[in-house]
Amino acid sequence: MDKPWDHLLIDCHLATLTDNGNAYGAIENGALAWKDGVLTFAGRVQDLPGMPVELADTVESLDDAWVSPGLIDCHTHLVFGGDRAAEFEQRLNGVSYETIARSGGGIVSTVLHTRTASEDALLAQSLPRARALVAEGVSTIEIKSGYGLDLDSESKMLRVARRIGEDLGIGVSTTFLGAHAVPPEFAGRQSDYVDEVCIHMMPAIAANGLADAVDAFCEKIGFTDSETRRVFETARGLGLPVKLHADQLSDLGGVALASEFSALSADHLEYTSVQGVRAMAASGMVAVLLPGAFYALRETRLPPIELLREHGVPMAVATDLNPGTSPLLSLRLAMNMACTLFRLTPEEAVRGATVHAARALRLNDRGALATGLRADVAVWGIRHPAELCYWMGGNPCRALYAGGRRIC
Amino acid sequence: MDKPWDHLLIDCHLATLTDNGNAYGAIENGALAWKDGVLTFAGRVQDLPGMPVELADTVESLDDAWVSPGLIDCHTHLVFGGDRAAEFEQRLNGVSYETIARSGGGIVSTVLHTRTASEDALLAQSLPRARALVAEGVSTIEIKSGYGLDLDSESKMLRVARRIGEDLGIGVSTTFLGAHAVPPEFAGRQSDYVDEVCIHMMPAIAANGLADAVDAFCEKIGFTDSETRRVFETARGLGLPVKLHADQLSDLGGVALASEFSALSADHLEYTSVQGVRAMAASGMVAVLLPGAFYALRETRLPPIELLREHGVPMAVATDLNPGTSPLLSLRLAMNMACTLFRLTPEEAVRGATVHAARALRLNDRGALATGLRADVAVWGIRHPAELCYWMGGNPCRALYAGGRRIC
Ligand SMILES: [Zn+2]
Ligand SMILES: [Zn+2]
Repeated sequence: MDKPWDHLLIDCHLATLTDNGNAYGAIENGALAWKDGVLTFAGRVQDLPGMPVELADTVESLDDAWVSPGLIDCHTHLVFGGDRAAEFEQRLNGVSYETIARSGGGIVSTVLHTRTASEDALLAQSLPRARALVAEGVSTIEIKSGYGLDLDSESKMLRVARRIGEDLGIGVSTTFLGAHAVPPEFAGRQSDYVDEVCIHMMPAIAANGLADAVDAFCEKIGFTDSETRRVFETARGLGLPVKLHADQLSDLGGVALASEFSALSADHLEYTSVQGVRAMAASGMVAVLLPGAFYALRETRLPPIELLREHGVPMAVATDLNPGTSPLLSLRLAMNMACTLFRLTPEEAVRGATVHAARALRLNDRGALATGLRADVAVWGIRHPAELCYWMGGNPCRALYAGGRRIC
Repeated sequence: MDKPWDHLLIDCHLATLTDNGNAYGAIENGALAWKDGVLTFAGRVQDLPGMPVELADTVESLDDAWVSPGLIDCHTHLVFGGDRAAEFEQRLNGVSYETIARSGGGIVSTVLHTRTASEDALLAQSLPRARALVAEGVSTIEIKSGYGLDLDSESKMLRVARRIGEDLGIGVSTTFLGAHAVPPEFAGRQSDYVDEVCIHMMPAIAANGLADAVDAFCEKIGFTDSETRRVFETARGLGLPVKLHADQLSDLGGVALASEFSALSADHLEYTSVQGVRAMAASGMVAVLLPGAFYALRETRLPPIELLREHGVPMAVATDLNPGTSPLLSLRLAMNMACTLFRLTPEEAVRGATVHAARALRLNDRGALATGLRADVAVWGIRHPAELCYWMGGNPCRALYAGGRRIC
């Protein structure tokens, strides 16, 4: 006789991250089941509609492990060529940013290495970084372009991002970040480069289905408010949702602009004002916190966590994995940093890497453990969900399923 | 015909950490060989005395990997019962230290869990933490007692530490830290507890060969200068070298005392004065830097790195792995923190986790790649040694040998 479910986990506790009234949406002595990659049961073991062996083809006893949704890293730049370790070393040996930039360092070096790498070489360099995230329970990753800065190279980056998803069996959400920096060949002609992004690059990338969203870097050292507006208007015309790197280094009002365009998220936010927070709350945006860059740059200005809480803005936590300001290969470490440096509670950090991260990517099918959602499931050898944020390093992830398929 | 060596690594680069005039003691296009657990060749591949296949039973081509000495974590408290994740969470939810202490939290809870665990249970809890360090290239670990605080429990901790070394095939250096805190049954009778440590505990532990060194926690909230002196005098009488937790929270002059006793190292050092640094230099002590606790406690007072450099005091870097102030399971992350937070150069951090860490433990047979030293060897999938400090998270360790035997 056919059994109703494919897979059933028992002898475990669930951190469902639903709003069931318990911290972490916890269900102690829980059980979790799925069929055809979709969750079919998430509840108390005593509420199972029968004997485990009669319910599923595979029944797994987890010896009191905790089970959570697969983690979601909703802000990364993990596809890039080369690395910037030499520059990291130079800076610590006292070489100035200016000297490094003059000798071809900084983002220019990453753009060069990204442009010259073949698609296969870029994939080979990027896969181990994605694998490092996956090994620690991440089953969905957002990946931005932004180191190609011309149509071919940006397209190559986004194809590599898609291939990472296929190769590892994980969810990948791609973001076109042509407005990340001005490439060398447009030096001094920033507005012309924005034309290039809006008139040539974005329409072609949209036509090829390479981007799920569009992002821009709105900062004094990046793109202006009005340039960002042009990028967002183009995205709107192409039916692509937007998000924004905003207020990392100063308050340029980018958050207000993002809310005007119903952006999915505003990311960084160290300098966001109360007006910005109100705009985020009003438009339902997610605040994506990136403590890895804050740590690596030794910033001291904290994002307005208390204001975000007061106004009910959902907070996500991500690695910002990138070679210059956040060579961070661990979402769990980003969660620890969010607690230690930004004073999030462990529950806020865990919600930030699950349910709120899913919302930042407009992925309504994941980020919690509930019937009908994707069977993206992480199994942890811990005694309490707070341990996901408490330990620095190590890896308590015992198993990870994406769409019901075991991927590590 | 018998081949002269057991194992030969080729197609690799060596970070020997010797003083050969190159950064990291580097030898590009190097080769490394050992026999019977001892290094027999560490040099340029072109200087090999014959064809690789004629030289060793096993010849391994490493595809341009970097090879370093196995890393050494010279300051940990990794044997303990329970964890303090719940307390971490309480603090972030705004519960005061006082309330936590009144409800049995803090070190008292770790002492309770450590005392009540059987030796096997304590080993089972501690082994995964040691494995996390080993997985990232650590082949020697210092482990302190200090959560037992009575003879039986301290002895149990040190036996567990020795068993970790045997089970994992790594080097373990044990340290008796009876003078870590005053146990509840001696509350208000600190001096009586120091008697207990000196008259009963330490002699018995020394007689059983359980400790390679003796440590004390000399702080306003710990033991006084004169109590520490009694501990050190007892250790001297028993022929045990000493080291000291000093100046983490205030400058009590502990470093001067440590130098008077020719201590191996003084550890923490955030508040060490120029006099302290001079004393360290004069007595040849190692300065052990513990950025994990600095990070987790959000300290702002930096150890006197520039003074330590000026006076030629060797700096080691360690995890301080402990459940209260540094739940840090990665020596590489401690090295990144030493660079990011303390502004060590990557080379200083790598020396701090190899050659200087060996010196802090008075282990003259390891910490570098040179003929005659132990074949403790880590293989890294990186393009430059600075990457060992640059990435946060992830794990570039491809292989680890301890005494010539592959352990991961
Ligand atoms: Zn970013
Ligand atoms: Zn310590």
